[in-house]
Amino acid sequence: MRRELSPAATAAAVAVLGFAVGLAGDACHVASGTTRYEWMGVPEIWRSRAWFPVLLTGAVLLAAWAGERSGLPAARTRSRADAITGAALVLALYALTAVLKGQPVTVSVVLTGALAVAVWSWWDPSPGAFAIAAAAAVAGPLAEIVVVSLDAASYAPDSDGLGGVAPWLPCLYFAAGAVASGLWSAVRGR
Amino acid sequence: MRRELSPAATAAAVAVLGFAVGLAGDACHVASGTTRYEWMGVPEIWRSRAWFPVLLTGAVLLAAWAGERSGLPAARTRSRADAITGAALVLALYALTAVLKGQPVTVSVVLTGALAVAVWSWWDPSPGAFAIAAAAAVAGPLAEIVVVSLDAASYAPDSDGLGGVAPWLPCLYFAAGAVASGLWSAVRGR
Amino acid sequence: MRRELSPAATAAAVAVLGFAVGLAGDACHVASGTTRYEWMGVPEIWRSRAWFPVLLTGAVLLAAWAGERSGLPAARTRSRADAITGAALVLALYALTAVLKGQPVTVSVVLTGALAVAVWSWWDPSPGAFAIAAAAAVAGPLAEIVVVSLDAASYAPDSDGLGGVAPWLPCLYFAAGAVASGLWSAVRGR
Repeated sequence: MRRELSPAATAAAVAVLGFAVGLAGDACHVASGTTRYEWMGVPEIWRSRAWFPVLLTGAVLLAAWAGERSGLPAARTRSRADAITGAALVLALYALTAVLKGQPVTVSVVLTGALAVAVWSWWDPSPGAFAIAAAAAVAGPLAEIVVVSLDAASYAPDSDGLGGVAPWLPCLYFAAGAVASGLWSAVRGR
Repeated sequence: MRRELSPAATAAAVAVLGFAVGLAGDACHVASGTTRYEWMGVPEIWRSRAWFPVLLTGAVLLAAWAGERSGLPAARTRSRADAITGAALVLALYALTAVLKGQPVTVSVVLTGALAVAVWSWWDPSPGAFAIAAAAAVAGPLAEIVVVSLDAASYAPDSDGLGGVAPWLPCLYFAAGAVASGLWSAVRGR
Repeated sequence: MRRELSPAATAAAVAVLGFAVGLAGDACHVASGTTRYEWMGVPEIWRSRAWFPVLLTGAVLLAAWAGERSGLPAARTRSRADAITGAALVLALYALTAVLKGQPVTVSVVLTGALAVAVWSWWDPSPGAFAIAAAAAVAGPLAEIVVVSLDAASYAPDSDGLGGVAPWLPCLYFAAGAVASGLWSAVRGR
């Protein structure tokens, strides 16, 4: 039986997972030409400007903390191994959206959306997880629309149909939010 | 503990799932140019002519009813949340076949086939579910071959190698049939 | 309750699974132009030269035997149905790498790697399975580098960035090794 992690260690592990997924996923979007950084004044980490993985890590911590604090019951208890599977599946979905560059919007949105729903209903098909996933699906793209309107980054002309960001972006944030909502208790263990 | 649904409510929920998956999946095939409607005399719903999602919904209801009535034991009991995951995975496979347009037949058939087998063996690795999945893998493409030979719809020239329909079509119907076979009891609940 | 298979029957079933996955996956790589056979003196099976699926079957048997003999505890007990799901997912990942031909290295490696980690953490998130998966991720590509340097086969110019083999090859072997490590006991049953 594994030891329960302290709050500080749990937060650190959640942050590392969020940072790693954000960094590797973003590298895929830059490599595929889906996104491009326009501000060059901030140091680069791999293929990201530092502010992006830092913001994303903060968002993952916030969603994980909200999921833990909400007191809403999870439909399934998740282990540390499940946390790795969940983070890996979100990263795979992130990379898949890079592969889908150039596909018709209908195809990329339906594929990403169906997989996002499957991630939520596998990970924790509870109303609480759905609420956090839906909040992420709204807040994440809105934040990126602000980033794009500030000329800090941009989406490719064939991938900017949702106010300057990609139409499948809410689906990706939905999956990430669903997993993040239960990440705190999964990583902490019992 | 959730309430068991009445037969009418169960049938309605199964029909809604089948209709939604058929409509969104078909929109992907039309968007990617995999399929094309040739008869224009029937009203359009999203990107489908109305007869297609209606036929598909009937087929899903039939498979769900056959799975329930067969009395063959399921290897795994599935919940309503599992039904959402199953429907989402079938829709993702549907959309994936649109992405695979232009791939060599070997690649698209092996990938779709492997995922279809994984869906069956995850959802319900029982002989009964296999039988319904296999029946769907034969009957579905045969029905579409008839549709194509009536000039109601057509597959693109690079995707019509199986009597006028796509070679991976049996794999997609196999996965859909496997999930449909257990959909009635999953949606009804216990 | 199913009968436990004899060691000979277990070995035969593991060999059949390994052979089938290797043959179908390799056919995808040949069809997509990812790999090419250069030695023509050996009989062909489907699209492979016979030595390849034979070597791969031996490797799967070795990994399955090592997983069984190691005595390291599995984190999850796997059934015969799970063995089919695991083999199907590894084959799907194999076929997916054929689809990814032409994608930027970052994208194909991150996507294959994330899915490989998800396969391991779903199938058996134990240190023993990880060790065998990691050993496969090193030994498999090394063996293929030798094969390429002997001019028996080659990877396409856009897919040979890792000493003549594809950069995502370790990820594919990692997933295959993880599943193979628990295949013996899953196939044998209890």
